[in-house]
Amino acid sequence: MAAASARQVNIAIIGVGGVGKCFLSQLEQLAARRPDPKLVLTYISTSKKALYSSDHVAIPIAGVTSALAASEQQPLPLPKLVDFLGTSGSKTVLVDNTSSQDVADAYPLFLDRGISVVTPNKKAFSGSYKLWQDIFAAAARSGAKVYHESSVGAGLPVISTLKDLVETGDEVTKIEGVFSGTLSFLFNSFAPVSGGAGGNQWSAEVRRAKELGYTEPDPRDDLNGLDVARKLTILARLAGLPVESPTSFPVQSLIPKELESVGSGEEFLDKLPAFDGQMEDIKAEAEKEGKVVRFVGSIDVATQQVKVGLEKFDKSHPIAALKGSDNIISFYTKRYGSNPLIVQGAGAGGEVTAMGVTSDLLKVLSQIA
Amino acid sequence: MAAASARQVNIAIIGVGGVGKCFLSQLEQLAARRPDPKLVLTYISTSKKALYSSDHVAIPIAGVTSALAASEQQPLPLPKLVDFLGTSGSKTVLVDNTSSQDVADAYPLFLDRGISVVTPNKKAFSGSYKLWQDIFAAAARSGAKVYHESSVGAGLPVISTLKDLVETGDEVTKIEGVFSGTLSFLFNSFAPVSGGAGGNQWSAEVRRAKELGYTEPDPRDDLNGLDVARKLTILARLAGLPVESPTSFPVQSLIPKELESVGSGEEFLDKLPAFDGQMEDIKAEAEKEGKVVRFVGSIDVATQQVKVGLEKFDKSHPIAALKGSDNIISFYTKRYGSNPLIVQGAGAGGEVTAMGVTSDLLKVLSQIA
Repeated sequence: MAAASARQVNIAIIGVGGVGKCFLSQLEQLAARRPDPKLVLTYISTSKKALYSSDHVAIPIAGVTSALAASEQQPLPLPKLVDFLGTSGSKTVLVDNTSSQDVADAYPLFLDRGISVVTPNKKAFSGSYKLWQDIFAAAARSGAKVYHESSVGAGLPVISTLKDLVETGDEVTKIEGVFSGTLSFLFNSFAPVSGGAGGNQWSAEVRRAKELGYTEPDPRDDLNGLDVARKLTILARLAGLPVESPTSFPVQSLIPKELESVGSGEEFLDKLPAFDGQMEDIKAEAEKEGKVVRFVGSIDVATQQVKVGLEKFDKSHPIAALKGSDNIISFYTKRYGSNPLIVQGAGAGGEVTAMGVTSDLLKVLSQIA
Repeated sequence: MAAASARQVNIAIIGVGGVGKCFLSQLEQLAARRPDPKLVLTYISTSKKALYSSDHVAIPIAGVTSALAASEQQPLPLPKLVDFLGTSGSKTVLVDNTSSQDVADAYPLFLDRGISVVTPNKKAFSGSYKLWQDIFAAAARSGAKVYHESSVGAGLPVISTLKDLVETGDEVTKIEGVFSGTLSFLFNSFAPVSGGAGGNQWSAEVRRAKELGYTEPDPRDDLNGLDVARKLTILARLAGLPVESPTSFPVQSLIPKELESVGSGEEFLDKLPAFDGQMEDIKAEAEKEGKVVRFVGSIDVATQQVKVGLEKFDKSHPIAALKGSDNIISFYTKRYGSNPLIVQGAGAGGEVTAMGVTSDLLKVLSQIA
């Protein structure tokens, strides 16, 4: 296809953290491997710095993080960025590798301008239902695409699978799973299927998970369940439920009330042992029934019930048998009957999260280029 | 998008068996749900009958199977069908719902003419390596698309996941799984994780599976392992191994040599009990190690080894814990590390197989329309 070899798609990137760095490396390899369409990086920014030129000259991807660190350009305010990208004359994809609510709020502006969006950022899809509607309405108006596979389960094919089920006319009746790598790791260690053997105290497991880098800097940001609630909100909406926000359904927090407002994550960890008895009771109660306790999210589509919290599972249940920090997501549908369609594997980490973003980018390119 | 509402894509269908009928029903619902692009059925055929008109008039999808049964038109020979579809003036997708080698052999002709192909038919992708190359070369030349998700694991996201891994630059090191619903059912019953309890004799399990409709009319067509070998061939090629054919690597057949050439499937079933001791020994040997035996396929990408046959698994292994006639496919990759990305669920059945075809059609439409 001689004509096609001249095709070009501009890429703008916001965010160069853990996921962003992995994405840059994948993008560099992709651009080298697939010359068509030609991918041209025209804008990249962190929260403090940016790289771009008014005539949209290509920024070399190799070494871009050093160039960015040395740059004296400020990031463009988002409405100006929309104008900048919209006047390039080329098809453009915005890659949002932040977890910023501000960037998410601006998606409708980008999409209305015909700029496609790919992102692992959960905020846009799990915030207010109005923002969700605005995003997809803008995309429908302009024909721009919006993909966010990595907003649930990182690179695992969760969102694409749910979309395929819904779009081909299957009836999703229930979605259930372990959606947090952190909480997966914690419970797989705290209440292993093999019984009390692994039985560290709860507070010790939380401290160990933090030391191994499995938790947020303040572990309460994992233990409050909000991250799981955001993911459930996204999946419920894709399944057709107009969930208003991640706080509009029951979410069980694993933070003892007394420790919700202590100052730092470190102080929280110091005081957590006093509450080990509560978690020990929950674990023992499950064991009495031959079960183990896990932190899961579920969506019952028929009754429109969404909930997040602790549940007990038979030791032979796939959710009980999970390993490490893996996620597992089960889709119960009319076509699949009593045995669900299951997707399982690492649901966090820079490389696999970036992979979902890169894969989304490829899907967008196949449609717009 | 006012301009877009005039878009039309023609659909031609070959094959109206179990999967074909389910696909027609999904297509009818899809056309009703999504008016853009307008899907127009212009050709449909079984091996004996066809429906089409020289001026490509739309065939109503509702009631098409009855209309087809009453038709006096013969199917067009494949090269003539290519000409017929190629002269319609509209973008066209061929849906091959057969398992015919002849239709598969003609894919390069369709693709060279710009006609996209979606199909659950394994023959094109697991036959000679030359046909595989011809198909993808023709698609690359014309820009037509070819999708075949349901050729492995029915509607499960197996091929799309493998493609995503490869295309985003991950390094797939190993693929392992249970790829046959029939053999999954047989071994989950014959050698259950719970021990000898389910322990019918092997021949009795085979007869029961046949009576329940889980096997081909002649169960030897499942027991010879060729169906699994075809699926492995497809996955190995997608992972980059130039596998010559499904007979170019070791495939263990579960048909005793002495029964390979007995006349009918019924006669085979009558004589199978004499060989129950062999399978009983294999099962007992596994149990002695605390394991169960399963019929699996595996691809070791680094050593380029592909093999199909019996293997032993710890009872806690996800492959051992499989239920009913489910498939399970584990992708070991550099990014996913020691815990594989796993896809699990029903890998056979009309509705879920047709779902993979419908989902492929949607992917093609998003790119060509």
